[in-house]
Order: sequence, then structure tokens, then C-alpha cells
Amino acid sequence: MNAPTQMAHLVPDIALRAVPQALLDALKARFKDQCSTALVVREQHGRDESSFEAPPPAAVVFAQSTTDVSDAVTLAAQYEVPVIPFGVGSSLEGHLLAVQGGISIDVSRMNQVLSINAEDLTVTVQAGVTRKQLNEAVKSTGLFFPIDPGADATIGGMSATRASGTNAVRYGTMRENVLALQVVTASGEVIRTGTRAKKSSAGYDLTRLMVGSEGTLGVITEITVKLYPLPEAISAAVCSFSSIADAVQTTIEIIQLGVPIARVELIDANTIRMVNAHSKLTLNEAPMLLMEFHGSPASVKEQAETVQEIATDHGGQSFEWASTPEERTKLWTARHNAYFAAIQSKPGCRAISTDTCVPISRLADCLLTSIAEVDASGLPYFLVGHVGDGNFHFGYLIDPASTTERATAEALNHKLVARALALEGTCTGEHGVGLHKMDFLVTEAGAGAVDMMRTIKRALDPKNIMNPGKIFAM
Amino acid sequence: MNAPTQMAHLVPDIALRAVPQALLDALKARFKDQCSTALVVREQHGRDESSFEAPPPAAVVFAQSTTDVSDAVTLAAQYEVPVIPFGVGSSLEGHLLAVQGGISIDVSRMNQVLSINAEDLTVTVQAGVTRKQLNEAVKSTGLFFPIDPGADATIGGMSATRASGTNAVRYGTMRENVLALQVVTASGEVIRTGTRAKKSSAGYDLTRLMVGSEGTLGVITEITVKLYPLPEAISAAVCSFSSIADAVQTTIEIIQLGVPIARVELIDANTIRMVNAHSKLTLNEAPMLLMEFHGSPASVKEQAETVQEIATDHGGQSFEWASTPEERTKLWTARHNAYFAAIQSKPGCRAISTDTCVPISRLADCLLTSIAEVDASGLPYFLVGHVGDGNFHFGYLIDPASTTERATAEALNHKLVARALALEGTCTGEHGVGLHKMDFLVTEAGAGAVDMMRTIKRALDPKNIMNPGKIFAM
Repeated sequence: MNAPTQMAHLVPDIALRAVPQALLDALKARFKDQCSTALVVREQHGRDESSFEAPPPAAVVFAQSTTDVSDAVTLAAQYEVPVIPFGVGSSLEGHLLAVQGGISIDVSRMNQVLSINAEDLTVTVQAGVTRKQLNEAVKSTGLFFPIDPGADATIGGMSATRASGTNAVRYGTMRENVLALQVVTASGEVIRTGTRAKKSSAGYDLTRLMVGSEGTLGVITEITVKLYPLPEAISAAVCSFSSIADAVQTTIEIIQLGVPIARVELIDANTIRMVNAHSKLTLNEAPMLLMEFHGSPASVKEQAETVQEIATDHGGQSFEWASTPEERTKLWTARHNAYFAAIQSKPGCRAISTDTCVPISRLADCLLTSIAEVDASGLPYFLVGHVGDGNFHFGYLIDPASTTERATAEALNHKLVARALALEGTCTGEHGVGLHKMDFLVTEAGAGAVDMMRTIKRALDPKNIMNPGKIFAM
Repeated sequence: MNAPTQMAHLVPDIALRAVPQALLDALKARFKDQCSTALVVREQHGRDESSFEAPPPAAVVFAQSTTDVSDAVTLAAQYEVPVIPFGVGSSLEGHLLAVQGGISIDVSRMNQVLSINAEDLTVTVQAGVTRKQLNEAVKSTGLFFPIDPGADATIGGMSATRASGTNAVRYGTMRENVLALQVVTASGEVIRTGTRAKKSSAGYDLTRLMVGSEGTLGVITEITVKLYPLPEAISAAVCSFSSIADAVQTTIEIIQLGVPIARVELIDANTIRMVNAHSKLTLNEAPMLLMEFHGSPASVKEQAETVQEIATDHGGQSFEWASTPEERTKLWTARHNAYFAAIQSKPGCRAISTDTCVPISRLADCLLTSIAEVDASGLPYFLVGHVGDGNFHFGYLIDPASTTERATAEALNHKLVARALALEGTCTGEHGVGLHKMDFLVTEAGAGAVDMMRTIKRALDPKNIMNPGKIFAM
């Protein structure tokens, strides 16, 4: 196996397991040109948007069907070789890295929208369908799928990491929006979890056990998710504040009043500067809330009025409205591009993203102290937040070659997570544990709960071949 | 162990496991008068609202704390004796029956509201707090907890069965509303799952694995649930239709249009007759939708207008409004009492309740054929439905001594479940599997998925002491 030439931040406890030539031969025989061992392909499947690096997988299987996935897993199980599902590679937490070696199963060619049930507000897709593709496919029905992580991720990957995004404050996360799954288990068996019924008390909630399991319990191959009627009226607005504290306090009151706001995102002045530069915009470079209201015209008006009152109480400037779909798209694209805008602001940098989420009443407490800390450190960063959910992301921009910068970033993150946990929050609102938060998970959940996760993992994957080395050490 | 004198419908595969005197002595020593072996107490804890009967548990422990539960489970584990958590005994599916013998752990004295976090819209309670008690406790905060199964069940029991009720169409079920749990595991260890953060991607979703696990994976001792602001405006209305088909079609269109209706319940003419007799009401004895609208005054008005238009299109009569809190309470109490009204309509009868739930577009298909079948059978019944969720309940009223009536009811239920599953629905929307739906679960989920559940059960409860014999045979 070739070692990557540049390994800025090698995963510390790499323990590669043997990938026998016999398995590679068997995969080649079964999958022909759907199986690649070319270095460039393997390297592409051996990294993600995290700052971690590890040797690439030994082979990549481009699955085109559930049977392909099942056959690949069955062969891997026979040789006790790890398998790592791969969508578009947008994980921020090292989920896709072959830290114990093994093969990557790329599901991006499984990109069929299998059935749109508009009359039930559900759609069933293959795992490789991306969120934008899904929304294109259902556009003509007058429905939409709201979950929007920054990247145009696959629905399979979003399910595996329990993703959310800017609309979660109103529409929930993948946890609330996945109804049913098809999963290939560690033995290669194909099972189904859930039904298209809106609710059920039929046995253990295997659907939600798989959602967020990060590929460690099975490969998700099909997903049925909820859709929502496109709101009759949509209005988006930005509102600038003289301090982050004011923006945060506004958010807290919006949520506590129960305003059914669809989006309420915080961007700090520094990040707006990066976004303006990247997206050629002229947003006011001050702490800002980006908001969106969905509903009937009367309801949208009512929500906006309530929120404007609250904002005014906290010194918010008057709303700037983005009323046309084009203006709204521009605004949200800018928000979604904040990550890339930040990366480009410091050539060659990598971002270490934080992902804490706290109860809404603790948001100001958690956020303001953390901002003071990162400002004091001198490290450049971006700050965006799904603040309506109590979730926000610092992206510490580090030179991957600088051990000092990495150490500073890690120290800041440790302090932030400790603070969030003390405030009854979580170390990860939506990115998952992956490689980066295994210690945090133990602190957060407790050794007993993590042991229960391990016991489940051991029972469902006795050979430890499903994306091993993620979430917890075995 | 004394056998009950009357055993109308003995659970078929009772296989009592030994309860050594040494365990009973140890429980008595540890729990003093918190432990009872009196027959009357045991019998009260050995039955529920199902039509099943089994010998009572060998002892009942009245836990007053998590430590009590932990100690009781630890002792039971030492002797490999089953433990069955008990709240108020309102299960409809035989969850509480000691089909393998063992001890009952009554948590009804664990009835403390531990912390109300109004500013985060969360509350943490002990497992024995009932839903009405919870709502009393949070009343002064302007918040409420919406989940309302018919009975005044405990929050512990509601979590264990993944309960829902009339408000689920807008507010979701226990699946969506439980944020965090404290659980005593099969070894007596105390773990916590989840946090008070609104969302999280931190490892396996143990919270939702426990929710709906029917006591088979652990005893739930504390629960953190979401609260909601009391709506600024609430309006309730009833609307009569000339046929059930019209009422159902109205419901389907309400949901498909995305009207955020808080409640939409179907009652058939026959059940209204029973309710009128029981609750001294004068409701129109025709198929009826009971609806409730929550929101701002403008939003409630808008919702009601939309729904009235839809209803009118399907021949609905004009709405009768219940505008005062007293009128609303009367209306919903009548709805909640439908079960008891029906039971009283046939002295000495038991109800066999069905609980299918189908995608909304399949509701008419599923319901109308099933009504024709039960009408043809001649068996008396009630029919109520959380139709906005595609969930409805027939209650077949049988003479428990009549094997013919029981066989007729079971045959009807089998046909109904087969129909619901063919329509991509579930055998149980909210009551759970318990003893009654184990075969249905295999048909619904498939042998592979049920095997996965069994594997998890075996891993987390290797001695099979946590409410054994429920959900699936081991």
C-alpha cells in the first residue's frame, strides 16, 4: 500500500488490517471496471473535508445497486476487511478515512429517485442521491426536502451522520425526517427498517439507530424521507446588530416565544467580510442574523412583525428583505459558501470546525465566552451558527503544517466543548463524532452509555468491519 | 404461586421461570414495606387494559428512586429473574403481564418533576409522573406537553411504548419529543442518554432505541421532554358528515395541503352514540371530525377557513365551535372517554383494540374496507381515529368467555393488519407490540430486521430478564 506523500495530520492510532490479494481478486472478478485500485481513485476516497489524513483504502467499489453493496460487504466479511461507505466525500470529521485499511464502497452511482409519493409527502431514494438532486426531482410536485447541510451531500451520508442545516429550527434534522431505510448489514444481508406510515410503535427504532451510526452498523442503501409543501409565502431578511450579544439575545427570544421561524442564522462581522469577498456581495460587515419565514402570507407577515419587534428591542437595524427567489438564493448561497469563503481567505489553510449545540437559554453564555477566547488566541476563524437550534460552528483556520496553530485550535475546541457540556449541550449538533470527537463523546455520554454503544456495535458487527475506528475505539 | 381464578384468555406460551425464595428475602430485606408479595397487590400489577391474562408477578417493588430501581434490577439479575416496569397499568397490549414470572417494579411513587426549564422549553421528570400531572406542573409557565394517549399514563410508560395521541399530527409522538433519558440497564447500571440540546449527532441514538423498547432493554427512570408555548389562540370544532368516506377525504386533503392542524380525530356514528350515553352529551350521531386549531388568532382563523372549505366540498355540515376552555375540555374528555364509553355499552366485555397506521393517501382504502368487514361480522365495536396521522383504532367488544367472539375479533384484526401492511403502513401506530402483535411485527419488519432487534436484546440483556416475552420471542 502506498503511503500518501503529504500527511499533515496523520490519524494517531492507525492500525492497518491486512487486505488479502484474494479479496482484491474476488472484487475485480465480481465488479470488473466498477472496482478500482488506481492510486488516484483510492486517494480521492481516502480523504474528506476534515484535516485528518490516513493511507487510502486498498480498493474502491462503485456500487450501482443494493445487490452490489451486499456482494461487496459479503466478500469483505469473508476476509474480515473493513468497508467504508462513500457518498460525495463532504464529511468534516474523518468519517471516510480508512484508518484500519479496507475498501471504500462508493454509492454515488446509486442515484435513482425510486418513488415520489407526493400525496403522502414522502419520497424514497437511493443512498447516492444528493439533497439538491432530490429537490430538483420533486420540484414539480410543489413539495420540498428542507434538510440542507452546507455541502450538496448525499441523502445516504446525511442519514449516516444525522445531518441538519439551516432549516432544522423549523423542520427538524435527519432524525425527525427519515421514515424508513434499506440497510446492508455487516453480514451482507439486506434489511428494511420502518415503513411509510408517519408514526409507529412496532419494535425497536432501528431506523433511528442507523441514522447517525456513521456507517459503523451497516451501509444505508435506500432512504424514505418526509417532504413538505412549498410554503405559500417565503420571505427572507437580514438584520444587523451592533454586537453578537444582541443578535443572540434576539434569537433566544424568537425561539422562546415559539415563532415558527424557518431559518435564523448568525454570521459574525469577520465572516461576512470573507463572504463578501468570495461571493461579490456587499452585506453590512456587522454581526448579522439571516432569517427566513415560511407560511401563508398572513402568517409570514405576522412572524416577521414579531421578530422585527424583538430585534428592535435589541438594537437591530431595520430588516433588509430578499423578496424574490433570486435574491433569496443569492443570500443563502452566500451563507452556504461561508466555509469555502473562509478557506480561501487564508491560502493553503484547513478549517477545524467546531459543532457544539446547547439549550437555547445557554447560547449567549456559551458563544460569547468562546468568541473572547478565540479572539485572544489570534487564530483566524469564521463563525456561523444555526443559532435557533443553539448550534454554531467556529472554523479555526490553520496552516496544516503548523503544529502550533493546530495545538491552539485543538485547545480552543476543548475549552468550547467542555463549556457546552457543562451547559447541558452536546459536542456535535450535526457533523457527527467521526475521528475527532471520540474523547468528547465519552465525556458527554458517560462511559456506561458509550459501552452500551460498543456492545451494540459488537453484536451487530462481530468482525468489526463496518467503518471501524469511528465514534469510539473498540 | 397462586393461579388467578378466572383466566379468560391465558397467554398461550407462558413458561414461568423460578423466583427463588432467596430473591424474595433479599428484596424484603432491602425494600421493607416498599416490597409486597400480597396477592391483591401482585394481581393488580399482573394485568393491564389488554384482554390477556397470566399469573401475577411474585412480588412488587415500589421504587422511590433510581437507586431503588437499580438495586431491584441488580438483585433480579443476580437470580436471573424477570423484571417488569409498571406505571399506571394502562397498556393495551399485555406489556405488564408476567408471562415468564418475575417481579414488578412499580415506579408510580417516582413522581417528582425534577426541573422545569421554561426558557429552553424542556422539563425533566421521574418516570412515574403522569401526563396530566406534568401539565399541571408546567401550567404557570405558559407551556404545555402535548402528547396525550387516552389514559393518564406515566411519562415512563409513554416513553417505553412510543406513545402518541390526538396532538401528534402537529406535535409528533414520544419519538420526536423525548430529548434525554436516564435508564437502569439489565445489569443494574444507571446510564444517561441524550442531553438537553435540541439536536445532536453524538453517537448512536440510544434515546430513541429506548423509546419504544417496551421495558425489554432497561427501565426508564427519568425523562427530559420538549414543551411548547400554549398557543395564543385555540379553537376546537366538530363537523358532521353524511359518510365516513367524506370525513376521511376531508382529512386527507387537510394534511396534503399542509394545514398545521393540531388535532383531527374521526369518530363514527355508533361510537358517538356510546359517548353521548356515557358523557351525557348530545353530539350529532353521524360520522364526525373533531378538530383543534392552534396558533395566533390570524393563523387559527386562516386554518379554520381552509378546513371549512375542504369540508364543505365533501358535504360537511357547518362547524360547531367549542370556543371556551370548558367547552373544549368537555369535547376532548368525551373523545378520550370513548374507550370507556364503549366498554360500558356491553357489560362485562373487553375490547380488543387495533392500532394500524397507514400513509395518509391510503387511509380511505384501509378504513372503508375494514369497516365493511366488521359490520358484516356483527361484532359490536367502537371506531376512533387519529386520522390526520393515518392511525385509527377499532375496539372489537367481545365477551371474554366467548371463544367465537374472540376468534371473530382476531380474524378481523388479522385482515386489517394485512391490509395496512400491504398499503405500506404499520401494525401499531402507538400502542406497541407487547404480546399481541409479535407475529405482525415479523410480517411488517421482516425476519432480518426482527433478528437484528433480537441480537440487540441479547447483547444488552444477556440473561433475558428485562420484560421478557414481549415484542418478539427469544
